[in-house]
Amino acid sequence: MNRVVEKILAGDVKTVAQLMRDVDDDVPGVKEYLKTLYKHTGKAYIIGITGVPGAGKSTLVASLIKHLRMINKTVGIIAIDPTSPFTGGAILGDRVRMQQHNLDDNVFIKSMATRGSFGGLSRSTRSAINILDAMGKDYVIVETVGVGQDEVDIVKAAHTTIVVLIPGMGDNVQAIKAGILEAGDIFAINKADIPGADKTARDISMMMDVNQSRFKADNWRPPIVKVEAISDKGVTELIQEINNHRNHIENLSSERKIQKQREKIREELLEIVKDRILQEALNQINKDNILQKTVEDIITGETDPYSACEMKILPKILARQTMS
Amino acid sequence: MNRVVEKILAGDVKTVAQLMRDVDDDVPGVKEYLKTLYKHTGKAYIIGITGVPGAGKSTLVASLIKHLRMINKTVGIIAIDPTSPFTGGAILGDRVRMQQHNLDDNVFIKSMATRGSFGGLSRSTRSAINILDAMGKDYVIVETVGVGQDEVDIVKAAHTTIVVLIPGMGDNVQAIKAGILEAGDIFAINKADIPGADKTARDISMMMDVNQSRFKADNWRPPIVKVEAISDKGVTELIQEINNHRNHIENLSSERKIQKQREKIREELLEIVKDRILQEALNQINKDNILQKTVEDIITGETDPYSACEMKILPKILARQTMS
Repeated sequence: MNRVVEKILAGDVKTVAQLMRDVDDDVPGVKEYLKTLYKHTGKAYIIGITGVPGAGKSTLVASLIKHLRMINKTVGIIAIDPTSPFTGGAILGDRVRMQQHNLDDNVFIKSMATRGSFGGLSRSTRSAINILDAMGKDYVIVETVGVGQDEVDIVKAAHTTIVVLIPGMGDNVQAIKAGILEAGDIFAINKADIPGADKTARDISMMMDVNQSRFKADNWRPPIVKVEAISDKGVTELIQEINNHRNHIENLSSERKIQKQREKIREELLEIVKDRILQEALNQINKDNILQKTVEDIITGETDPYSACEMKILPKILARQTMS
Repeated sequence: MNRVVEKILAGDVKTVAQLMRDVDDDVPGVKEYLKTLYKHTGKAYIIGITGVPGAGKSTLVASLIKHLRMINKTVGIIAIDPTSPFTGGAILGDRVRMQQHNLDDNVFIKSMATRGSFGGLSRSTRSAINILDAMGKDYVIVETVGVGQDEVDIVKAAHTTIVVLIPGMGDNVQAIKAGILEAGDIFAINKADIPGADKTARDISMMMDVNQSRFKADNWRPPIVKVEAISDKGVTELIQEINNHRNHIENLSSERKIQKQREKIREELLEIVKDRILQEALNQINKDNILQKTVEDIITGETDPYSACEMKILPKILARQTMS
């Protein structure tokens, strides 16, 4: 085990790739590595990139990698695909631009698929972040579609979250429906050559004016940066704003900083707990074959899902402590 | 209790609204009603409407309601907002068109907010579907943004799922990223007056050709319907396709039908189990204040989240059965 950990701390790409696969597959013993590696985390700067489908997030990430590499920073990327069995490999073509960095040993790209309903995405992502952090990456970029709760949870792990928008996404505030705006530390309007970029910028700015309470906590008003990721336009400015936000965070009162750290650890712990509980529950359910039996009982009308859950399934899973 | 159930079965709007609020708030005793009502479900036809933000789903739902009311069908609607504390009430404006039906006693509209990371959305939504079903609605329409896992889970409850797209959503297959295409029984291209509607239709059709395996199971090739929901154009055709799909399902072999029923019940049961387990876990964690203590131990480096979860938190929650 120490050998593996040593290799990862030394930045060995093959070992890291193997451990990540093992985390995905939940190979027994993987947690021991994660426990040990955790002590070596906390150095990487984590950037979350989120936004609606089609906003050009992957292209922006590719451009960010290029710029960070120019100033000799090492980068880890976690790209989360909403799994689409329907489209098969189609998604990959979209990441071509990003893959050009795959030959660079200082860039590590990890693709993550979203999971079934018993989850695991947030937990796997956080483990991947920790591994990339421990292996010594200066920056870890997490790219995710910003709509589902899972995705919002992931963004909570970032120090700086960039919400990527494109001009003219439906009538005025339609984009809001994504429910991701409140997560943004920086707004990037990509494809800013499309007419309407200024209007989108104004709309966002106006929304911030209306919802000032959102920004009172740390006196940070999210800047709006117009970019054309495909030709790297505006990306230098975007990186400048990331640095500004980083400085801003670092200059918070030590009280506020520890508070933020507590929140982050709390979130991570809850993710791990949630994931482990569901995993154990699923194991238990599968082992006893109770699910199948219960489904038949519901079909025959002998019971209903609510009663069956309460009477038959939960007692097998949960520790019911008798209270005085 | 029988009084409440009777009122709901008789379609009493006030009682239904109250029970739904109680479900949201997880008021004790609410499960007893759900258990009893479950026996009276299975009659409503459930339609799922999903698609990217800004596709005009709410407008389409409003138009569907209008058309279904014209043929004297009663309708229940469950509209799921991705909660956006940032935007406050902005979302409501968008539902205005739908709300015009709120004065019609034969239309019941329920808005659902997405929840925090310990979930509950799928379970609440399924409970709401069951209540609307039991109260006698002919159709239940569930509208949701189609990206997160939660949202995909919800769509599984529908008999017919309509994926709403708009022309020119990014370059060719960008829309695919949403990971929702595989859920569609019918594709509706909304805002079909926008240039590019035909191209979008061709793209989808081509994807179906490429991924034929997706459609082999029940020999149903999802039709593509162009609509302009805002002026009700194409909505009659859309309803025709819904009827076609309904007939198709009803004409499946009885073997296949029972198989589909099993899958549906299994999903619902898993949702309920998942939700209840997490709820119990959260209660347990909060009661013992272990979370806060553990966070401090992680900050001081005394433990890490993985070890803490395994050693301190899980044993309090899960029934660990000793195995021989």
